[in-house]
Amino acid sequence: MQLEFLGTGSGQPSKFRNVTSIALRLLEERNAVWLFDVGEATQHQILKTTLRPRKVEKIFISHLHGDHIFGLPGFLSSRSFQGANRNEPLTIYGPKGVQDFVKTALRVSETRLTYPVHYVETTSGIIFDDDTFTVEALPLKHRIETWGYRVTEKDHPGELQVDKLQAAHIPAGPIYGQLKAGKQVTLPDGRIINGQDFIGQAQKGRIITFILDTRPNDNSLQLAHNADVLVHESTYGSSPEENKMAKAHGHSTSLNAAKTAIQSHVGTLLLTHLSARYIGPQVNQLIHDVRDVFPNTRVVRDFDIIEIPFKKVGNDTK
Amino acid sequence: MQLEFLGTGSGQPSKFRNVTSIALRLLEERNAVWLFDVGEATQHQILKTTLRPRKVEKIFISHLHGDHIFGLPGFLSSRSFQGANRNEPLTIYGPKGVQDFVKTALRVSETRLTYPVHYVETTSGIIFDDDTFTVEALPLKHRIETWGYRVTEKDHPGELQVDKLQAAHIPAGPIYGQLKAGKQVTLPDGRIINGQDFIGQAQKGRIITFILDTRPNDNSLQLAHNADVLVHESTYGSSPEENKMAKAHGHSTSLNAAKTAIQSHVGTLLLTHLSARYIGPQVNQLIHDVRDVFPNTRVVRDFDIIEIPFKKVGNDTK
Ligand SMILES: [Zn+2]
Ligand SMILES: [Zn+2]
Repeated sequence: MQLEFLGTGSGQPSKFRNVTSIALRLLEERNAVWLFDVGEATQHQILKTTLRPRKVEKIFISHLHGDHIFGLPGFLSSRSFQGANRNEPLTIYGPKGVQDFVKTALRVSETRLTYPVHYVETTSGIIFDDDTFTVEALPLKHRIETWGYRVTEKDHPGELQVDKLQAAHIPAGPIYGQLKAGKQVTLPDGRIINGQDFIGQAQKGRIITFILDTRPNDNSLQLAHNADVLVHESTYGSSPEENKMAKAHGHSTSLNAAKTAIQSHVGTLLLTHLSARYIGPQVNQLIHDVRDVFPNTRVVRDFDIIEIPFKKVGNDTK
Repeated sequence: MQLEFLGTGSGQPSKFRNVTSIALRLLEERNAVWLFDVGEATQHQILKTTLRPRKVEKIFISHLHGDHIFGLPGFLSSRSFQGANRNEPLTIYGPKGVQDFVKTALRVSETRLTYPVHYVETTSGIIFDDDTFTVEALPLKHRIETWGYRVTEKDHPGELQVDKLQAAHIPAGPIYGQLKAGKQVTLPDGRIINGQDFIGQAQKGRIITFILDTRPNDNSLQLAHNADVLVHESTYGSSPEENKMAKAHGHSTSLNAAKTAIQSHVGTLLLTHLSARYIGPQVNQLIHDVRDVFPNTRVVRDFDIIEIPFKKVGNDTK
C-alpha cells in the first residue's frame, strides 16, 4: 500500500506542482488503485508513472472546485481508449454535481466509454465496505460542499505458521485447515494440539485519512482519529497574515493541519495542496512552523510515493 | 504573426505530444492571441511558453471531441486567476455544445470568472470581421459537427515614404496627410505632386487556414484557397492500411492533406494531430509520403513556433 501524489498544488497548475490528485495504490491488497480528486492533467501525470488507468477502480471527489475535478472527463476517456472493458467498471464518489459535470462532458463530446461508470453521492458515514476495506465520509468546512474520507483496511488475520507445525512433527493434511481456524484437534498419536498456538500475530488494518480543502473542524478530527497517515491540505503557512488568508479562502495553514494531527493521534502527517507562492526554501518554512506541534510532518511533492507500513505490534509470533 | 503549436497529438496525450491546441500570435497585429482548440492541459503547455492567458482574445473550436475542448474550463478559470478583468472579454466560437460544456463546468465548480465570455455559434460564412481580420468558417466531414476556419488579414496600405519626400525637398506639413491618401497636391513653389508616387507597396494580408479532423472534402479546398499557411490534421500516414484507418475514423492521411494543399495553391503545409503511433523516424515517413505531391510540408511538434511572413510581391517601392 502506497500513496502516490500526482498533484500537490492548489488553484491552478504551476511549473512545479500540478493541481490535486492522489493515488492510493492497493495493488497487493486488491489489485487496484483508488484516486482522490482528479485535477486537470491528472492523466498527463499518470503518463509519467507506472500507474495504469485500467487499474483505477474507484475515484473519491472531495469537492467540485475546478482544481479537483477538471481532469475527470479526460481521464475517463483515456481509460476507455486504453482498453478498459465492460468488466472493469469504475465508481465515482462525490457531491451530486460530479455526475452532472462528467455526463455533460461525455455527452457533448459524444464519448462512449467502453466500461460502466457508477456514481455514488457521498453522504455522512460508511459509503463503501467489503472484505478488505471500509470508507467513511464526513462533511468538512470549505466554501462549497466538501467531504473528508477515511479509508480503513480490515485487520489481516494471523497466518498459520507451517514451519512451526513441521518442527513439532505435525504432518500436513486436512487438520491444518482446522488449526488455521483456531480449533483444537487430536492427532493420530494422541497429542492434543491447539490451533491458537500456531497462528501468527494478526495485523491491524491501516488507516489513511484525506482532508482536502477545509478550515479546522471537528469532523476532521473524527476522520483522522488514530490514522496511520493523514493527508491534509496546507494551502498556506502559519504566519498571522497567512492565517488570515487561509481563513478568508476557507483553507488551512500548516499549523491547522498539525493541530488536527496531534489531536487525532495520527502516525504521519503529509501536507499537500500548497499555494504556488511556496517554492524552494519557503516550503521548509511550512515544516518549521509545525515541528514543535507535530514533528512527523512532511510536505509532499508531485510524484512522491509514500509507503504505508503495517503498525508494529509487540512480538510478531505468540 | 506566428503560429505556436501547444499540442500536436490526437485522441489522448502521449509523452511527446499533447492533445490539440494552436495559438495564432497576433501580438504586433492586434496585441492579442487567438487559440484554435483547447485540449486538456493547454494551460499547462502555456505555462512553458511566453504566452499570457490575458492576451487570449478569441478561441475557435473545430469540434467537440474531448481532445479538442477538455482544457477549456481550466484555461478560462486560470485566465481569471491571473487577473483578467471586465475589460478583457473573451469570445468563444464553435458548435453550440461548447457553451453547454463550459457553463456546466463553471456552474458545478462555482467558478465566477472575472471577465465576460461571449459565445458565438459557428455557422457557414464570415463569423468575424473588423479593421484588421476576417474569419470565415465552413463545415468539414468528421464523425461529429466540425468546422474549418480561414483567417484573412486585411491588406496593409502602403506607407508614406517620408525619406523620398524629403529627398525631393517637399517639406513636412499637413500636405503629407493628403499625399498619404494618394491625392495630388500643388506645392507653394508650383510643383504638382502625386501622392501615389510616394506611397510604398501595399502588403497583401496573410491567410491562415485551420483544417482539423476531417476527411478530404470540397470545403477544405475552399477554405485553404491561396492560403499562406495551411494547418491540416494528419492523424495517419499514407499506406493503404493507414488510409483505411483514416477512412474508418473520419480522419486524414498526410497524402490527403498534401492533395488539399496542392489543389488549393497554399504556400506551406503544416501537419498536426498525429496519432501517437508515429514517433521518431516514423514521423519522417509522413513527409516522405507526400514530398512528390507537396514538397513544402512540415510535421510540427509541440512548442514549434512558425513565423508567417508577408508574401514577397515584386519590387517594394513603385
Ligand atoms: Zn477548493
Ligand atoms: Zn475529432
